[in-house]
Amino acid sequence: MTETSTLRLDEAFDLSVAVLVRNGFAIDHATAVATVVCAGQRDECHSHGLYRLLGCVRSIRAGKVDGVVQPELFDHAPGIVRVDAKGGYSLLAFEAGRTMLVNKARQNGIAALVINHCYHFSALWPEVEALAAQGVVAIAMTPSHNWVAPFGGTKPVFGTNPLAFAWPRPGKDPYVFDFATSSVARGEIELHRRAGKPIPLDWAVDESGAPTDSAEKALSGAMTTFGGHKGSALSTMIELIAGPLIGDLSSIESKQFDNGAGAAPYHGELLLAFDPKVFTGVEASRHAERAEIIFDAIIDQGARLPSQRRYAARARSLASGEVEVPSALLADIRALL
Amino acid sequence: MTETSTLRLDEAFDLSVAVLVRNGFAIDHATAVATVVCAGQRDECHSHGLYRLLGCVRSIRAGKVDGVVQPELFDHAPGIVRVDAKGGYSLLAFEAGRTMLVNKARQNGIAALVINHCYHFSALWPEVEALAAQGVVAIAMTPSHNWVAPFGGTKPVFGTNPLAFAWPRPGKDPYVFDFATSSVARGEIELHRRAGKPIPLDWAVDESGAPTDSAEKALSGAMTTFGGHKGSALSTMIELIAGPLIGDLSSIESKQFDNGAGAAPYHGELLLAFDPKVFTGVEASRHAERAEIIFDAIIDQGARLPSQRRYAARARSLASGEVEVPSALLADIRALL
Repeated sequence: MTETSTLRLDEAFDLSVAVLVRNGFAIDHATAVATVVCAGQRDECHSHGLYRLLGCVRSIRAGKVDGVVQPELFDHAPGIVRVDAKGGYSLLAFEAGRTMLVNKARQNGIAALVINHCYHFSALWPEVEALAAQGVVAIAMTPSHNWVAPFGGTKPVFGTNPLAFAWPRPGKDPYVFDFATSSVARGEIELHRRAGKPIPLDWAVDESGAPTDSAEKALSGAMTTFGGHKGSALSTMIELIAGPLIGDLSSIESKQFDNGAGAAPYHGELLLAFDPKVFTGVEASRHAERAEIIFDAIIDQGARLPSQRRYAARARSLASGEVEVPSALLADIRALL
Repeated sequence: MTETSTLRLDEAFDLSVAVLVRNGFAIDHATAVATVVCAGQRDECHSHGLYRLLGCVRSIRAGKVDGVVQPELFDHAPGIVRVDAKGGYSLLAFEAGRTMLVNKARQNGIAALVINHCYHFSALWPEVEALAAQGVVAIAMTPSHNWVAPFGGTKPVFGTNPLAFAWPRPGKDPYVFDFATSSVARGEIELHRRAGKPIPLDWAVDESGAPTDSAEKALSGAMTTFGGHKGSALSTMIELIAGPLIGDLSSIESKQFDNGAGAAPYHGELLLAFDPKVFTGVEASRHAERAEIIFDAIIDQGARLPSQRRYAARARSLASGEVEVPSALLADIRALL
C-alpha cells in the first residue's frame, strides 16, 4: 500500500511552477510544463503526472534542456509550420506553432507542425486534445531515446515512439488516444522500479536479450514493441517521419547526444491537423454525427473508448478540486525547492 | 500438401485480364486490377494475389461494383485531391489522382488524396510503393466491412482497416509495410477455410463471442484487432479518418450497404503524401542517409524489415519469370472465363 498525500489542484500547480523556477526555468516554460504535468495528475495518468518534475529538474541540472530560450516560429511551406525549440522543452514550441497549424489546416485541409530541437518528456494527448478543441482532427508523434528493440531483435533501436490522435465530437469530450508503441510507457517501468515491483516478462529483455521481470534490468536492456511485427512497423514509421523526414534526430541519435546524462530525449515532434470542414464542407457536421455511430457501437457492447477512464478521473479531480500524490514522490519533489 | 501449377508472369496477367473482361470489366479497370493481383502473386502475398479475382467477379456479378465507370478527379482544396470512383474499384481512381497528389505534396509539403465511393479489395502496398518511387513518403488506409470487434468487445465494429506506409530509400527498394489492424488479413482466414485448416484461437470469436478455431465460424463471428487496446485504437483512427472525415462510409455502413451480397467493401480511401524536399530542402538527401542508420540497426541484429520477404519473393519471380498458383484456385479462376 503506497502512502499518498492530497494536494489541491492549485497547490499542485503552484508547487510545480515553484520547483521549475527554482531550478532555472523561466516562468513561461515553467507554466507550460506545470500545466501538462498537473493535467496528467488530474487525469490520473501517473506516468505523465507530477512524477515528471523529477526528470525536468534532472535535465536542466545536467545542463541539457534550456529553461529560458524562446522558440522561433517559421511559416516553412504552404502546408508546414515549423518551430525551432532551440533546446528548450517542446511545450512552448507547440504553443508557438499551434495557431498557424490550425490556420493552415483550415486553408489547405491538411497541414503539419514540425517542432525541431526540442527536449521532450510530456504526454501528447494534451496537445491533440487542444487541437481538437479548435475543431480539427489531430495526430502527434515523436521518437525518444532508443530504448525499444524491433520485433525479432533484442537490441534497442526505437524510442517508445508515442502516437496520439484526437477527433472532435459534437457536444462531447473528443475521442483521444495516446499510446507508446513500446509494450508499455517507459514511465511505467520506472514507477515499478521506484515501487520495487516486478514487471511482466513480455515488457522487456535484459542486456543479454533474455526476457526479464526486473524493472532495473529492463531499463538497462531493451523494451519490446506492442503488437509484434505490426507494432514494430508502426514504431519504425514514427521513427522515420518524426525523425529524418523533419530533419531531426532519431532515437539512436538522441541517446548518443544525451551521452549518459539521463536527460529527456532531444529530437523533433510531428503533428498533423485535418480540417473536416475543408474535407466535406457543409456536410461536415452530418458526417461527425455518423462517426458517433462508431462510438456507440463500441460503447453499447461494453467495450471502452481509450479516453473514457481519463475523462472520468478528470471529472473526479475537478469535482473534489484535489489530486492524490504518493507521499514519497511529493517529498522528492519538495526536496527540489 | 497443396498441388500447385506454374504460370508465366505474362500468362498470369493475360488470364487475369481475360477473366475480368469476360465478366464485364472495361479494359482499363481490368488492367488496373490484373496489375495489382499479379503483383501480389509475384511477391507471394497470396491473400492479395490471383485469389482476389474470385471476389472481383463475385462483386460485379452481384451487380455491386461498376466495371466500366470512369473516375472523376477534383482539385478539392490546396492540400486535398479528391477522386470520385463512382462505384468502380479504387484502383483506376488512385491512378487518376496520384499525379495531382504528388504535385500538391511538392507544393505544400503535405497533401491528401481522398478516394470516394469505391469498391476496395486490393493490398495498399502497391499504391504507397508507387508513390515512394516518385520520391514522396506515403501513408494509405481504408475501412472495409465491419468484421472486427473492438478490444474488450465481441461484436464487429471495425473493418480490417489496413495501414500502409512507404519511405523512399536512396538506391534501394523503399521501406514498405502494409498491415491489417485485425489480427490477420481476412483473406488469411478465407484461405484457411478453403484449405480446411483450423485457425489460431486468438484470431476471432464466433457469433456467441467465444474464441474459435473454425475459419467458418470466425467468418460469421468477429475477428480480433492486433495488439490489444492499442491496435483497437489505431483501427478506430483509420475508421474515422478514412470514413466520416472524408465523407464516406464506415465499415458498419459498408456492410449494411452490401446487404448480404458478399461483394467487396464499398467506402473511401485516404492517402497522405509528404515531400522530404519540402520538409528539409537541400538537406533532404543527408537526412535520408541518416534514416539508413535505423534500417541498418534493425537488419544488423538479425531482425527483418517488413518488406524484405516480399522483395525476395519478387526477385525470385522476376528471375524465373513464373509464379506458383494452387491448382484448385487456378481451376476456379479458369472456370470464370
